[in-house]
Amino acid sequence: MAKATAKPAEPVTTDDRQPPTGKRQAIIDAAARVFLQAGYGAASMDAIAAEAGASKQTVYSHFGAKDALFAAIVEGKCEDLMAPVAMPAVPARDHEKALAELARRFVASMLAPGNMALFRLVIAESARFPELARAFYRAGPLTAVENLAGYLTELADAGTLTTGDPIASARLFFSMLRGDIYIRALLGLDETATAAEMEALVRQAVSAFLAAHAPK
Amino acid sequence: MAKATAKPAEPVTTDDRQPPTGKRQAIIDAAARVFLQAGYGAASMDAIAAEAGASKQTVYSHFGAKDALFAAIVEGKCEDLMAPVAMPAVPARDHEKALAELARRFVASMLAPGNMALFRLVIAESARFPELARAFYRAGPLTAVENLAGYLTELADAGTLTTGDPIASARLFFSMLRGDIYIRALLGLDETATAAEMEALVRQAVSAFLAAHAPK
Repeated sequence: MAKATAKPAEPVTTDDRQPPTGKRQAIIDAAARVFLQAGYGAASMDAIAAEAGASKQTVYSHFGAKDALFAAIVEGKCEDLMAPVAMPAVPARDHEKALAELARRFVASMLAPGNMALFRLVIAESARFPELARAFYRAGPLTAVENLAGYLTELADAGTLTTGDPIASARLFFSMLRGDIYIRALLGLDETATAAEMEALVRQAVSAFLAAHAPK
Repeated sequence: MAKATAKPAEPVTTDDRQPPTGKRQAIIDAAARVFLQAGYGAASMDAIAAEAGASKQTVYSHFGAKDALFAAIVEGKCEDLMAPVAMPAVPARDHEKALAELARRFVASMLAPGNMALFRLVIAESARFPELARAFYRAGPLTAVENLAGYLTELADAGTLTTGDPIASARLFFSMLRGDIYIRALLGLDETATAAEMEALVRQAVSAFLAAHAPK
């Protein structure tokens, strides 16, 4: 992740990794497919090289070992995760619309099969790679909460809603979106929620959240 | 799981497996420790036999293979999961107290290190053992929702609160408890939430839930 100069909407990170070359990115993409399909333990450098259409030597020249590849995948994904949790550009008076749009993006991003599969892999490998679990947490859940808490503070200052603790309120908002669909996806029971189910979830969450934070 | 005749508080299940003998249970307990520590793939029957203080032959005579042991662990745990999600025995007029007590038990059960470790293992192995992921879902999240939805229907009939969809409301209630503490535990970042943090989460959820379901 380079420092976010070209993309001001994304939070600044502190990783000074060089931008990926085309070949490097092709290997990362191939490795992601192999890891997500086989799991970390069963993924071999041979399979990754074959999937990338590269020699094993080329894979090793870009990434010394399997753990470096896994780190590159998670770090790359962390950048993708940050975009959907930025506050939507909606006028402040349309706060209900802004919250619904944020919820919609969050649910879509969280449930996207590739993201959910990676999340499950990060959970499974968190004992081996605690720093990647932490990077994932920072890029997704933590950034989402911080962005929303800032917005809720503005709304509270304007008297649009009441909150004694914007961080706690923001955490509640996102937790409301971790319902039955989420648990089922996490357990691999049902990875394709319908658009109607997602929209019902979004509406329920926004409506309950606003009722619980009604202006005094 | 035997049919719940001696333990009427627990939901009846349909598995007619014989009750475990002492040796059998000792092997299951030992296997659980090995699986949770090493992961499914890396856990060996040798390590399990050593942990149980049994011969490998004894382990094989009780369980033909590693997958049968894993199934026995998850099925045993499913019974434990059901007790905390039964509605607390509190007079109906104390509905706020009942909801808080239910939330408290749910959070404590969900975050208990052994349960969270098993949940992470079931997530990691859900592609290999979809039927175990389903059993886990039924015993925990689904039973919790069904029990609460029944209680919410009673409260709605009595005019204590409003809900157009008791199942959706029950799902919202439990999702409110899957906040930051939960995500951090899932990612292995922080498995020991303080009692004060858990209590703050419970109070926030109950209060927001009641505001969102206020009687008309």
